[in-house]
Amino acid sequence: MFKAIISADTLRTTLDAVSVLVDECKIHLNEDGLAIRAVDPANVGMVDLELSSDAFESYDADGGLIGVNLSRLEDIAGMADAGQLIHLELDEETRKLHIQIEGLEYTLALIDPDSIRQEPDLPDLDLPATVVIEGGDLDRAVRAADMVSDHIALGVDDTSELFYVDAEGDTDDVHLELDADDLIDLEVGPAHSLFSLDYLKDMNKAIPKDAEITAELGEEFPVKLHFDLAEGQGSVTYMLAPRIQSD
Amino acid sequence: MFKAIISADTLRTTLDAVSVLVDECKIHLNEDGLAIRAVDPANVGMVDLELSSDAFESYDADGGLIGVNLSRLEDIAGMADAGQLIHLELDEETRKLHIQIEGLEYTLALIDPDSIRQEPDLPDLDLPATVVIEGGDLDRAVRAADMVSDHIALGVDDTSELFYVDAEGDTDDVHLELDADDLIDLEVGPAHSLFSLDYLKDMNKAIPKDAEITAELGEEFPVKLHFDLAEGQGSVTYMLAPRIQSD
Amino acid sequence: MFKAIISADTLRTTLDAVSVLVDECKIHLNEDGLAIRAVDPANVGMVDLELSSDAFESYDADGGLIGVNLSRLEDIAGMADAGQLIHLELDEETRKLHIQIEGLEYTLALIDPDSIRQEPDLPDLDLPATVVIEGGDLDRAVRAADMVSDHIALGVDDTSELFYVDAEGDTDDVHLELDADDLIDLEVGPAHSLFSLDYLKDMNKAIPKDAEITAELGEEFPVKLHFDLAEGQGSVTYMLAPRIQSD
Repeated sequence: MFKAIISADTLRTTLDAVSVLVDECKIHLNEDGLAIRAVDPANVGMVDLELSSDAFESYDADGGLIGVNLSRLEDIAGMADAGQLIHLELDEETRKLHIQIEGLEYTLALIDPDSIRQEPDLPDLDLPATVVIEGGDLDRAVRAADMVSDHIALGVDDTSELFYVDAEGDTDDVHLELDADDLIDLEVGPAHSLFSLDYLKDMNKAIPKDAEITAELGEEFPVKLHFDLAEGQGSVTYMLAPRIQSD
Repeated sequence: MFKAIISADTLRTTLDAVSVLVDECKIHLNEDGLAIRAVDPANVGMVDLELSSDAFESYDADGGLIGVNLSRLEDIAGMADAGQLIHLELDEETRKLHIQIEGLEYTLALIDPDSIRQEPDLPDLDLPATVVIEGGDLDRAVRAADMVSDHIALGVDDTSELFYVDAEGDTDDVHLELDADDLIDLEVGPAHSLFSLDYLKDMNKAIPKDAEITAELGEEFPVKLHFDLAEGQGSVTYMLAPRIQSD
Repeated sequence: MFKAIISADTLRTTLDAVSVLVDECKIHLNEDGLAIRAVDPANVGMVDLELSSDAFESYDADGGLIGVNLSRLEDIAGMADAGQLIHLELDEETRKLHIQIEGLEYTLALIDPDSIRQEPDLPDLDLPATVVIEGGDLDRAVRAADMVSDHIALGVDDTSELFYVDAEGDTDDVHLELDADDLIDLEVGPAHSLFSLDYLKDMNKAIPKDAEITAELGEEFPVKLHFDLAEGQGSVTYMLAPRIQSD
């Protein structure tokens, strides 16, 4: 059983956070809210998303699992105006999701969850450095790096107490340094890892420019990017595997 | 003889209403205004447009007939700002249309009307159901149907007294119901017909979102869509032939 | 030695004025400001640009010469918001330009000036007619001409005392006449020349719509287009060679 009402804005932000990595996903319809975990086909980027029932206008579920085509669901949510409410109701028999937006009813065929790529286990890493940065600053770093290279280094300098971004191209380089004053928070520790810019660009697309991003970093370790959704009633964690340094 | 002055906005809206169906058309330069009738090459969609001389700043004509390339005339009208006036004058000898926009003079070669597809006779149908709907609601229905299918059913339910839109895709469906409260007006009668979404999308493009659309419907009959232009001083009727139901 | 601070807006306008003609250029880092001269590969369009040191927030140079890839430098300048300042500093040893925008540091590899197309000598022409026209009016003429032809005639009618633009297509024509009242200034003289519209469109892109353009014209002679940058602290002169009339 699943029946819920959610604002178009909240649903869209939620779906976007996952669709930048995968086309289809499983959604756990837990009693206390939705949960989604997914990994991209190359096993490089993962997402772990939770949306509390408090983020909904009304929410009623008892632990089901559905599989959805994300771009299709995004298109439907895109039919609603920002402030409009979207009604969702699962028909257990036909395995279809009924979606209503002000008189308009859309019947979405679900996907057999067993046919969807298995959900990843997010490794429990104890990363030594933590940086809390504005979404807009991360966006600037990613766009600048993209002008010169297809990979990007994220690191923390213990001694100078700063977070840095490095991108080295064939001829040109980009470098950004942010110290404690430029950041919302900084816990220094040894950290330097290289990442694929394509993945970070995709994740960056889903990160609101005014969000606080908590980035956990280590040396040649994955980066974890955490931010809140729906005014704190939802949360997203991205994990991105490092590339091997080719120096 | 033809000499007229018209606001850029009114000319553009008029041309758009025809150009969604055909590339070239004949324009009757009647004493009391312009008249255009055209049918698309597949004989599925027709348009019947009238623009009264009152919609012009000044208008002088005595019954001529010209053939025009619509996209070219739209490009020229597109050079004017919204509030600007466009001067039109026919040179009978050279068969060219002189178009002036604030000092800029464009000389448009006309097309021999005999070389343009014959104007259709709009059948005089007595359709049993009439729905008066806002342009914005029609737009929503058409865009939603387009997500799942390439055809769309429009109908009226006699018993429940409502207008409905149905689109059935391979896996997903869209359904919209509007009752008398949601509509501007509704005269029930037996009506259900299937239409090509491509044509309805084209017509929808030319329909202002805030216009009142009067739709006349029957069972497996064409639909007539009627709306006003130029603050009531012009009118457009589209007629769209039904597709054969394939149940 | 070169070290300067400039607003993002001013840098972008300066680069755009040159990049519409060439991909790479030499920049003279004179004591009193920047100077750029370039000609397109076909030797049809030339640009002569000067930007005074007064257009900068701070400026320090002693006469060097650098070669730059314009689109790359434009991309970097595009990372800054309109009001932001861009810091430029030349590293003489590595021949790289260090560009800083609020903590973001970009290292741009320069191009050997000797490998860049030689700078043109701008011929000192004494053209008989001068027209001072608003950028917006030139833009309108160029866009209208572009609808019918790939070349455009610019001329001055001595007797009627007006500036005109003519474009003749296979079927349609465009004609624009501006007299002394429509223009900022007009010095009549015999002038009529035909130009490639492609070049004039490119130059037009870089001309602000609210700029005063001084156009110097002759009979089958190049046109010179002059306008100011950076609130008068910079100046651009384009010169465009005429096409042979094919009457």
